[in-house]
Amino acid sequence: MNEIDLNEIKSPADIRKMSIPELKQLAAEMRAALLEKLSVHGGHVGPNLGMVEAVIALHYVFDTPDDKIVFDVSHQTYPHKMITGRMKAFTDPAHYDDVTGYTNPAESEYDLYSLGHTSSAVALAAGLAKARDLQGGKENVVAVIGDGSLSGGVAFEGLDYGATLGTNFIVVVNDNQMSIAENHGGIYADLRLLRNSNGTAEPNLFRAMGYGYRYVHYGNDLASLIEMFRAVKDIDHPVVVHINTMKGMGLPVAETDKETYHYTGPFDLKTGAPLHEEAPQTQAETYDEVFARGMLRRMKENEKVVTITAGTPGVLGFDKERRREAGRQFIDVAIAEQSAVDLASGLAKGGMRPVAGFVSSFLQRAYDQFSQDIALNKQPATFVVFYGSMFGMNDETHLGFFDIALLSNIPGLLFLAPTCKEEFEAMLDWSVKQNTMPVVVRTPGAVAVSNPDIKLLDDYSQPEYEIVRQGKDIALIGAGLMYGFMAQAADILAKDGVNVTLINPRNLSTLDTATLDSLKDYRAVITAEDGIIDGGFGQKVASYLGEAPVKVINLGLPKEFLNRYNYTELQERCGLTPAQIARTALAASK
Amino acid sequence: MNEIDLNEIKSPADIRKMSIPELKQLAAEMRAALLEKLSVHGGHVGPNLGMVEAVIALHYVFDTPDDKIVFDVSHQTYPHKMITGRMKAFTDPAHYDDVTGYTNPAESEYDLYSLGHTSSAVALAAGLAKARDLQGGKENVVAVIGDGSLSGGVAFEGLDYGATLGTNFIVVVNDNQMSIAENHGGIYADLRLLRNSNGTAEPNLFRAMGYGYRYVHYGNDLASLIEMFRAVKDIDHPVVVHINTMKGMGLPVAETDKETYHYTGPFDLKTGAPLHEEAPQTQAETYDEVFARGMLRRMKENEKVVTITAGTPGVLGFDKERRREAGRQFIDVAIAEQSAVDLASGLAKGGMRPVAGFVSSFLQRAYDQFSQDIALNKQPATFVVFYGSMFGMNDETHLGFFDIALLSNIPGLLFLAPTCKEEFEAMLDWSVKQNTMPVVVRTPGAVAVSNPDIKLLDDYSQPEYEIVRQGKDIALIGAGLMYGFMAQAADILAKDGVNVTLINPRNLSTLDTATLDSLKDYRAVITAEDGIIDGGFGQKVASYLGEAPVKVINLGLPKEFLNRYNYTELQERCGLTPAQIARTALAASK
Repeated sequence: MNEIDLNEIKSPADIRKMSIPELKQLAAEMRAALLEKLSVHGGHVGPNLGMVEAVIALHYVFDTPDDKIVFDVSHQTYPHKMITGRMKAFTDPAHYDDVTGYTNPAESEYDLYSLGHTSSAVALAAGLAKARDLQGGKENVVAVIGDGSLSGGVAFEGLDYGATLGTNFIVVVNDNQMSIAENHGGIYADLRLLRNSNGTAEPNLFRAMGYGYRYVHYGNDLASLIEMFRAVKDIDHPVVVHINTMKGMGLPVAETDKETYHYTGPFDLKTGAPLHEEAPQTQAETYDEVFARGMLRRMKENEKVVTITAGTPGVLGFDKERRREAGRQFIDVAIAEQSAVDLASGLAKGGMRPVAGFVSSFLQRAYDQFSQDIALNKQPATFVVFYGSMFGMNDETHLGFFDIALLSNIPGLLFLAPTCKEEFEAMLDWSVKQNTMPVVVRTPGAVAVSNPDIKLLDDYSQPEYEIVRQGKDIALIGAGLMYGFMAQAADILAKDGVNVTLINPRNLSTLDTATLDSLKDYRAVITAEDGIIDGGFGQKVASYLGEAPVKVINLGLPKEFLNRYNYTELQERCGLTPAQIARTALAASK
Repeated sequence: MNEIDLNEIKSPADIRKMSIPELKQLAAEMRAALLEKLSVHGGHVGPNLGMVEAVIALHYVFDTPDDKIVFDVSHQTYPHKMITGRMKAFTDPAHYDDVTGYTNPAESEYDLYSLGHTSSAVALAAGLAKARDLQGGKENVVAVIGDGSLSGGVAFEGLDYGATLGTNFIVVVNDNQMSIAENHGGIYADLRLLRNSNGTAEPNLFRAMGYGYRYVHYGNDLASLIEMFRAVKDIDHPVVVHINTMKGMGLPVAETDKETYHYTGPFDLKTGAPLHEEAPQTQAETYDEVFARGMLRRMKENEKVVTITAGTPGVLGFDKERRREAGRQFIDVAIAEQSAVDLASGLAKGGMRPVAGFVSSFLQRAYDQFSQDIALNKQPATFVVFYGSMFGMNDETHLGFFDIALLSNIPGLLFLAPTCKEEFEAMLDWSVKQNTMPVVVRTPGAVAVSNPDIKLLDDYSQPEYEIVRQGKDIALIGAGLMYGFMAQAADILAKDGVNVTLINPRNLSTLDTATLDSLKDYRAVITAEDGIIDGGFGQKVASYLGEAPVKVINLGLPKEFLNRYNYTELQERCGLTPAQIARTALAASK
């Protein structure tokens, strides 16, 4: 067979003309191109390598974009992007960054949603199906879920509702036997049972929820997939198609070490070995390392301490070896943030000292549990926020600057913002010892900052701002990572003979009114936080000082879903560089 | 058999001595006492009448409080309270208000949590079980879930994790064949199948999730329940006990009309007919009426308009008759707020005009969906907040003053706060016509306020404050229901010759900076909102005006989980009566 020129694939119409052998050739070439790009560029390696055939088969059988496919999480849609008009972004290094890592309606009519959080595709697709039914449409509606996202509560809610549609509704469950790390939970035992019985076993979760059920054992075999998708196309009732795929297929190390190759930076194409091409400074210590080492120590010192993750142990620095070391004291509930928070509540109630870590953008999935089951019920659990920073993830679906506004306004939930790793450690040490209140500790940025001079406390329960430097007229209050920029601004100002007061607030949920009262006759108080201004810390200060003569200037981020922004440009746009802060302070002092 | 003196029941130890016939007598007397109290006091009628026997059997068999029972929702725990030391609150009218309507650790060691939102009990109990296992304990851990709460996503997350415990973990599913209204969703078809087969059928949802499974067909028969609970007591693995109970048992009209008698005010004990003993003014028009009538009109005018509820059609004013009238344009996804929001997103994407209504306190269960699937994806769905007010529900688990801080800080989500029913209607009329943005419309309080003089707009997409009265020096900005109190304050001040500027901001998510700029040289701007000050509307104003000479005073609620507060006292505590506002304004004008 002749080689296929991938760049000639402009839309799914171009693959629908192909024979099965040609499609196999296409899959092989697409996988090679994917590997080439991923080895240079990094990305979601395993999920995409495993879905090449399924994505080809879906677009081959279904009449996209008239038929509608909603991809859950959508980090597994690189093959989808390749055959829906964006091939160049995978074949031409100069265009590698033309596309985002997720479906994006701004890029293509084949992308229905910008999706980066898991588990929502079934409910979203149910809405599309209902819209179709109410308008008398005939198109197929397909939700593609899996890669561990089935454990999220909204997936069940969507399945539960979708079962009642009574019309065409196709849920493709991509069962690659993994979450980001290994799978946890009762449903995965059922998936295993179904795989081992070639789909014939009972009990069957999907039948129990009211779906027809089909199983494709060779989920990377194009002929099997096409046959099955043809069988369910235009079906008149809800059906689950369970496909058994190989995560990481085509990269032997990724097939073996699925966790490491779920998402990775550049690697050697032959061996899969990671390439460390980054500049030395980006190899600095990270908070996952600081956290994991500290938690292993705390868990050894006190067997009541446990560490909890919702499917992202790597974010917490707990690789396989550390999980082994932690033993029973490390708990992974799978991608199920609500359950993780409630588990922490139950553990705390039962006398343990739980510490649960979340990516900033994902903890918002459990707001109700934070509010009701933790804060209202005063359970002394500790929650650590990772990537809660403008310097965290910069995809619009994974932004890390909403958590202050989200959590610091919940009554009784103490929100601590350490400024450096020493303070981060001290706050965690205190939090796992106390048993009176729930505590959130936010890692300051992604790369660990050290400040050996930081003044640490034995007790962080009460709001107590540290006046690090006593000046006059102008006060700079820098929360978390922003403290460092404020301190640098204070240095700049000092060189100009302007001595400002520099404050580390530590606590973002309750104001230290005594300290704020001492600033009432200042010319200006400038706050800076590593989060949106709206609903955040600075606005509390502005409100408290609203009747005082002092000016209040709040620095922070705009209330926007920014996408793949440049970190430095954003910092400048927000006036958050030390030089800008110094200029703002000087202007306010006049 | 002799009558039992209910007031002699001080703890479960007192019932453990009883014979089965005595327990039956106890159940009969407890039900009679419950009916007596409920007929006078109102409350969750159906759920409690159905659970009398199950609660007795649980405390009879399990060694509470050493064995631990977590009741989901916990609105069905009146019988539990009766036999755990709080009988008087059900037998002595003078003590009817001694207990809350939910489990409450402040009342009893038998109450593990203050729970009022649904679906969390399984995950919480899993935490308790895990804490037990890690500490080598031997007690039984029991989660009691049901009455429609199984459809919430966190219930599935909890079941999924709980299945992996591998130790004693007992989930009692109270299947009364109902949610608040009728049940919806695929899982309920399975429950029906299981009921109809006496628990023998496949597929079986619980087995599919990894649980052992037992079924009690006569879930109001004490002997059957006791036998089953004894059989699973001290079991060494996770098991579901599915009990088939009669919601409303003992009150014929409640057995028949389960929806009406889920929660009701006082009723005639003989007939069940509602008693209207309230003062005439509380019989005023309510927003559920205004909303339902308006939506029926909108749905008739435009068949693309649909109304969505997550298991609380009554809150939206959609009784059975109106649901019938709306037909396919009314959708109940069951208690599943995340799915409801995503369904709205899918419907909007599919060209429909969805309007979903939520109780303020419940919408927080879908924050991630509001953020990601609605706002980030710019889907033109409309969300209506009910009881979002200090004058809404006053149980600590159902407070209605956190939603402004929660939703108004999400980028791109327009948050509208009408001040009266005319404005509420106009905003909804606009919202279902536009197709560019997601919109939240918050009902102003619970009882409809009318203001025929209100200035309505054709387009509410842009922030445009209405200056209702132009004064000087002092501006009163009253959001939503607070506008009325502000207007009254302005009247009081006018009588004293003080002419203030009175503003209706309409929009709480984006500032009308032009109007605010015009206030920079005022003496004071006073904001008032029907929600917590922290993270809310007023603090945005304070921040924006932070550099201007004008004083800013933010009025609103404290960041606290208040419980069963007195409305008037709270209003006074917050300085939100018209007279107080007028005094504050006068003081600020000096």
